[in-house]
Amino acid sequence: MDTGGEFGLIRRHFARPSGDAAVTLGVGDDAALVRIAPGMELVLAVDMMVEGRHFLPGADAEALGHKILAVNLSDIAAMGARPRFALLAGALPDADDRWLEAFARGLFALADAHGVSLVGGDTTRGPRNLCLTIAGEVPEGTAVRRSGARVADDVWVSGTLGDAMLGLAAIEGRAAVPDAHRAGLRQRLDRPVPRVALGQRLRGIATAMIDVSDGLVGDVGHVLQASGVGASIALEAVPRSPALDGALRSSDSRQVALDCLLAGGDDYELCFTAPSAARSRLGEIAREVSVPLTRVGAIVAEAGLVVRDAHGRALELPRAFDHFA
Amino acid sequence: MDTGGEFGLIRRHFARPSGDAAVTLGVGDDAALVRIAPGMELVLAVDMMVEGRHFLPGADAEALGHKILAVNLSDIAAMGARPRFALLAGALPDADDRWLEAFARGLFALADAHGVSLVGGDTTRGPRNLCLTIAGEVPEGTAVRRSGARVADDVWVSGTLGDAMLGLAAIEGRAAVPDAHRAGLRQRLDRPVPRVALGQRLRGIATAMIDVSDGLVGDVGHVLQASGVGASIALEAVPRSPALDGALRSSDSRQVALDCLLAGGDDYELCFTAPSAARSRLGEIAREVSVPLTRVGAIVAEAGLVVRDAHGRALELPRAFDHFA
Repeated sequence: MDTGGEFGLIRRHFARPSGDAAVTLGVGDDAALVRIAPGMELVLAVDMMVEGRHFLPGADAEALGHKILAVNLSDIAAMGARPRFALLAGALPDADDRWLEAFARGLFALADAHGVSLVGGDTTRGPRNLCLTIAGEVPEGTAVRRSGARVADDVWVSGTLGDAMLGLAAIEGRAAVPDAHRAGLRQRLDRPVPRVALGQRLRGIATAMIDVSDGLVGDVGHVLQASGVGASIALEAVPRSPALDGALRSSDSRQVALDCLLAGGDDYELCFTAPSAARSRLGEIAREVSVPLTRVGAIVAEAGLVVRDAHGRALELPRAFDHFA
Repeated sequence: MDTGGEFGLIRRHFARPSGDAAVTLGVGDDAALVRIAPGMELVLAVDMMVEGRHFLPGADAEALGHKILAVNLSDIAAMGARPRFALLAGALPDADDRWLEAFARGLFALADAHGVSLVGGDTTRGPRNLCLTIAGEVPEGTAVRRSGARVADDVWVSGTLGDAMLGLAAIEGRAAVPDAHRAGLRQRLDRPVPRVALGQRLRGIATAMIDVSDGLVGDVGHVLQASGVGASIALEAVPRSPALDGALRSSDSRQVALDCLLAGGDDYELCFTAPSAARSRLGEIAREVSVPLTRVGAIVAEAGLVVRDAHGRALELPRAFDHFA
C-alpha cells in the first residue's frame, strides 16, 4: 500500500469537508480561505520548524527568526494575498535571552518589511521547535489556488531554483562549490526571500500558484493533481544561478545539482501557470517587482509531469521531499 | 534581576506595540483581537503542547486530540468569543496511523461539538509537539479582556479548581486520593471541558476574564496586573470537588491539595470579575449553561492578591506555574 507519506497522512486523518459555508478552501492548498466578512477572505497558514530536521543545533537565531516568518509569508504569497497578522509558538530548551533577542530581531525585521503584526504566541520548555501561524487577506474570490491550471497554460517560475539545497550540499561536502558562491547559497538557505509583492501582482493573471518549498517536481505535482492536468517542462529552461549552473557542469557534482534544481526544497520561489496571452504582462510585472520570471514549460492534458532534456528525452525524476517517506 | 520567567521573556522580546490600527489587542491577553471587517473582531490564539512537558510519553492519543483543541477553545471562551477555525501543526516521531486516527477522533469530536472547522496544518518529523492555532469572532468592542476589573467588582470562578493537578499528584503518588475519585480527577486532567457557552454568555456582564490554565493565583494575578487593581479572595469560598475537599481534610495531602486549589493549572475554568449588580443575572446564566458559578472574593484598590483563611489570616501564596521559572 502506498501510504503517500506526509501528504497521505494529512489526507487520511485531517482533510475532512467542513460543514461551515464560510470555509471557502480547507486543508490541502498553500493556505486556507475563510470568508468572515462580505467582500474579503481571510487566508490562514501555519508552518513548523524543528531543530535537527529543518535546522541544525546551533543555527543562527536571527536567521531562524527570519526564516520561520519567511516560509509562512511564502504561503500567503502563493495565494496572491496580503499578509497581516502572525502568531508564534515556540518550544525552547532554555530561556536564553541572547538567543531570543537575536531571534526576535530577525523575525521583526522581516515582519516590519511586510507590515505584519505579531499579535500572539505561546512559549514552553522543550526540544527547540518554532511554529508560526499567519493570517492574510485577499478580495473575495481572487485568491490563486493550486487547482486552476488549464491545458495550454504556460508554467512559470520566479527567481532561480535549487540554490538552498545546493548550499546545504556544499556545507555537507556533497557538492563541490567554489568559495565565491558558498556565501550566496548559504544566504538562500538561511534567509529565503518570500515573493510577497510578486504573489499579489499575479492575482487575476496566474491560473494556479504554489510556492516551491518541497522542490519543483513535488510542488508542480501538487498543482497538476489539484488541477487534473499534466505538464511538460524543459530542463534547460529551469532558471538556475551561476553557482548551480557551475555545479551542473562539473561531473562530480552534476547529479547532486540536478537533484537540487528539480527537487531541492526551501527555495520559496513561486511557481504558477498563466495563459500565453499574459506573457508580455508578466514581463512587465517581473520588471516592476524586480524578480525574474522564467517560462519553463506548459500544461498538457495527459496527467503527470515530464521533464525533458535538451535532446527531448524524458528524465527520470528525483523523488519529492517527504518528511514521512 | 527578576527576569519574570515565561511572561517576562514574552514581554521583553515579543510584546511590541503594533503600528497597525487593525490590531485592537496584541500580545498579553488570552487571545489577540484584530479588526478586519466593520462590526466584527477576529480573535486569535495559539497553544503548544510538548511531550514530556504537557503530557507523558505514551499518553492517550484521543485525549491529546481533545486537549490541544480544548485549551485553545478555553482562550476563545475567556474572551467571550465564538470559536470558528483551527490550524494544527504537529511534530511526530513517526507516521503512526493508529496514533493519528485516535488523535484526529479526539480532535474532531470536540471540534464538531463547537462548530470549529480545521482549515489547515503542517506535519513534520520530530520530538512530539502539538501546536494549534484558533480563530474566533466577536462583535466589535464586546470581547472581555483582562484589563477591565474595577474596584468593588466581585471575583467569580466557574466549576471547581485544582482537580486536574490533584489528578496528576495522585498518579505520581504525591497525594492520597480514594479510588472512587481517581478516574474523575484523571478525566479533568486529560479531557478538560472548555467553558465556551459560558464565556459567550458573559459578554456585557463580566468586566474582565481569564481562563484558569496556570492556576488561580497566577491567573488572577494577570487580571489584577492588567487592570491595575488588587483582589481579596476567601479560601473557603474557592469552589472544590469532593475529591479535593477530601484531600484538604487529610493531614498527609493537605498542602498538596491547597497548592492544587490555589495554583494548580490545567483546569480551564473561567475566572471573571463583574459588578455586584450582576449577581442574580449570573445565577440565571449558571443555571442556563449548567455550569456552577461561585463568588470567591472582590476587587480592591490596593495592588496584589490576598487569600484569607476562615480566620481572616492571609495565606502565604504558592508560586504560579512558569515554564521558565
